[in-house]
Amino acid sequence: MAEIVSFRKDNNNSGEGALVLRQLSDGILRLTLNNPPANALNISVMETLMGELQGAADDKDVRIVVIASTGNVFSAGHDLKELTAHRADEDDGVAFFEETFALAADLMLEISRLPKPVIAEIDGLATAAGCQLVASCDLAICTDTSTFCTPGVNIGLFCSTPAVAVSRAAHRKQAMEMLLTGETIDASTAKDFGLVNRIVPKQYLTQVVSKYASVIASKSPEALRIGKEAFYKQLEMPVAEAYDYAASVMVDGMLTGDAQEGIGAFLGKRTPEWKGE
Amino acid sequence: MAEIVSFRKDNNNSGEGALVLRQLSDGILRLTLNNPPANALNISVMETLMGELQGAADDKDVRIVVIASTGNVFSAGHDLKELTAHRADEDDGVAFFEETFALAADLMLEISRLPKPVIAEIDGLATAAGCQLVASCDLAICTDTSTFCTPGVNIGLFCSTPAVAVSRAAHRKQAMEMLLTGETIDASTAKDFGLVNRIVPKQYLTQVVSKYASVIASKSPEALRIGKEAFYKQLEMPVAEAYDYAASVMVDGMLTGDAQEGIGAFLGKRTPEWKGE
Amino acid sequence: MAEIVSFRKDNNNSGEGALVLRQLSDGILRLTLNNPPANALNISVMETLMGELQGAADDKDVRIVVIASTGNVFSAGHDLKELTAHRADEDDGVAFFEETFALAADLMLEISRLPKPVIAEIDGLATAAGCQLVASCDLAICTDTSTFCTPGVNIGLFCSTPAVAVSRAAHRKQAMEMLLTGETIDASTAKDFGLVNRIVPKQYLTQVVSKYASVIASKSPEALRIGKEAFYKQLEMPVAEAYDYAASVMVDGMLTGDAQEGIGAFLGKRTPEWKGE
Repeated sequence: MAEIVSFRKDNNNSGEGALVLRQLSDGILRLTLNNPPANALNISVMETLMGELQGAADDKDVRIVVIASTGNVFSAGHDLKELTAHRADEDDGVAFFEETFALAADLMLEISRLPKPVIAEIDGLATAAGCQLVASCDLAICTDTSTFCTPGVNIGLFCSTPAVAVSRAAHRKQAMEMLLTGETIDASTAKDFGLVNRIVPKQYLTQVVSKYASVIASKSPEALRIGKEAFYKQLEMPVAEAYDYAASVMVDGMLTGDAQEGIGAFLGKRTPEWKGE
Repeated sequence: MAEIVSFRKDNNNSGEGALVLRQLSDGILRLTLNNPPANALNISVMETLMGELQGAADDKDVRIVVIASTGNVFSAGHDLKELTAHRADEDDGVAFFEETFALAADLMLEISRLPKPVIAEIDGLATAAGCQLVASCDLAICTDTSTFCTPGVNIGLFCSTPAVAVSRAAHRKQAMEMLLTGETIDASTAKDFGLVNRIVPKQYLTQVVSKYASVIASKSPEALRIGKEAFYKQLEMPVAEAYDYAASVMVDGMLTGDAQEGIGAFLGKRTPEWKGE
Repeated sequence: MAEIVSFRKDNNNSGEGALVLRQLSDGILRLTLNNPPANALNISVMETLMGELQGAADDKDVRIVVIASTGNVFSAGHDLKELTAHRADEDDGVAFFEETFALAADLMLEISRLPKPVIAEIDGLATAAGCQLVASCDLAICTDTSTFCTPGVNIGLFCSTPAVAVSRAAHRKQAMEMLLTGETIDASTAKDFGLVNRIVPKQYLTQVVSKYASVIASKSPEALRIGKEAFYKQLEMPVAEAYDYAASVMVDGMLTGDAQEGIGAFLGKRTPEWKGE
């Protein structure tokens, strides 16, 4: 596999600086939200992140994506100043609000639909759409000082879109507690709720995430693509239909070159060599 | 907001005494099951509670509802003596059984559909339909000596309606353990399962519940109404549809006066003043 | 209830020895995977297990089923050698792969559809379809040294069918962690995830499982049959529909002889006597 390390400074629309830092190494695409201090998910940041994800989908050099952030806020969600400024629009901002929430929803769905796993690497506060982003990634690993909340109720705007992701990651009473109170939970509570997979001391965050990413990047990309798609599709089916579908996915999986290679390697006690596609 | 403290002694159908005590203070409607010793959910109690909830839906003075109980049993579920007495009916009780279970189902759904949050305040045993009531509330806070069970199997009547609520609050294996064994779990296990949000020493129960209720009552009623409705609706949709729906809810939410006020207050670093509707 | 203890040595198709040991005692049917060292779920084992389950469905002497295993591997899933051998078939194994995964799916669904509870008794590694089997049982109890994984990604074949069961037992991020990394989790983590109900020291495993089984076997078989069916059916319905359905199940339940007996016994403070059907 080719090793590519790049650092694009011009990946935002306006060209004023990198809103999302990009680093590709050993198949791990590291996308770092770089819109301090809040790493707000404004239109430009979301479009940049979406562009990176869409590019990663077809990029054979990318095997797994990590979404991280600069500073001590993972992401504080949408940009309230930007949203408020558009209240002055002729339509009172309706078109802009529609664009913002539709784009955010598309972005979250894009993460699930991406044929490669996505890990959220969280250090600091993840709030509102920032918490939604964490909940939408396949896996999430955070520092022990990270915190999470869906505080829309505090500003008269219930976090209804974050609720979609949070209520699918956690039990409903625990999701409701976050949504109704707007209060902040700590990393340990977030892990109990199912929002994060692992808690790590700050100095080891990137190391541990990279270990996870490397482990997953070493798997067959084809198997990951097939499996991730099947995982989210079957979740939305009645169980008998899910089994019909998943069984056919397994049959197709058996016929891939990587399954033949992987099973052969396992039985032959050797290391498999994936096609890398 | 008006402050109303009332205590209705005649809110049951038969007029023999208050089956459900009612206290409204600072926007918090406290409904206390008062049918000791078991706080059985017989027809009268369920109709009274339903009436209170329906009244609360349109009562601008009510911002949040707390369901508590007198004595050391939160609720032991339906009234087995009442049910058994109706076996002597001409139809062997069929009509009465239908009325009982349909009313209970309506009551539980009413809690989810109420445009205001509902907190269960549990001290003591919550069993069968009493456990269903806990599972059906948006949030649940209990004392450390509270216990929970779905013991229908012990009396030849599997807790199939409680299962609807419990299996949506907890993982299925844990729900099944309660349902198949009929055994009682402690507060800590109930929290692990997702049935309750928080465990509190007995002497602090009402204080902590009131704190939660006050925090939630201080939010925009409009945002709570919009958000609670969206939460339960989107839970039953495939994720892409859920996002379409929730995004439109967010746009509508942005156009409410309370979101404009709340976001303005946040950006202006002042306390918001809600319309209070 | 009749007590039957039997030990069939010829319950596999080829007749070469018992692939699944069978022991019936006090209403508890104990099925022990006996295909060491991996207790692989090959076609013969799955057919034998399916046959036992189908037989148990109509056997009045069976009140509950326990699925255990010999050796220190609960089950390592499908037989990779068997699967690989069929790559030499004219159709490259397609028909055989289809048979394998369809049979496995049917087996897992059969467990949910069986009108009697099924407990997995796990001592050792449960991997791939072995982990799926654990996740598919109504309850699961394991030793503290048991481990669980869905390692298909390691061999180029994502565990898409195990994902159906695991993602319905656990939160999705935790399921994804198992599926994407292929790493092994310990018993404690499996309990946190919702995959198992209880962890027991090895020397007490069978004793504790038998206690659970005895407790459940002492309940009304009719109530268990009605309730288990209702549990899995209502899980797949929107909540209002689930309540309509479950309320009708409760009415039907009230009309059964065992509910009449059970409620009468409860009110009369005596031990109920079930019809035993």
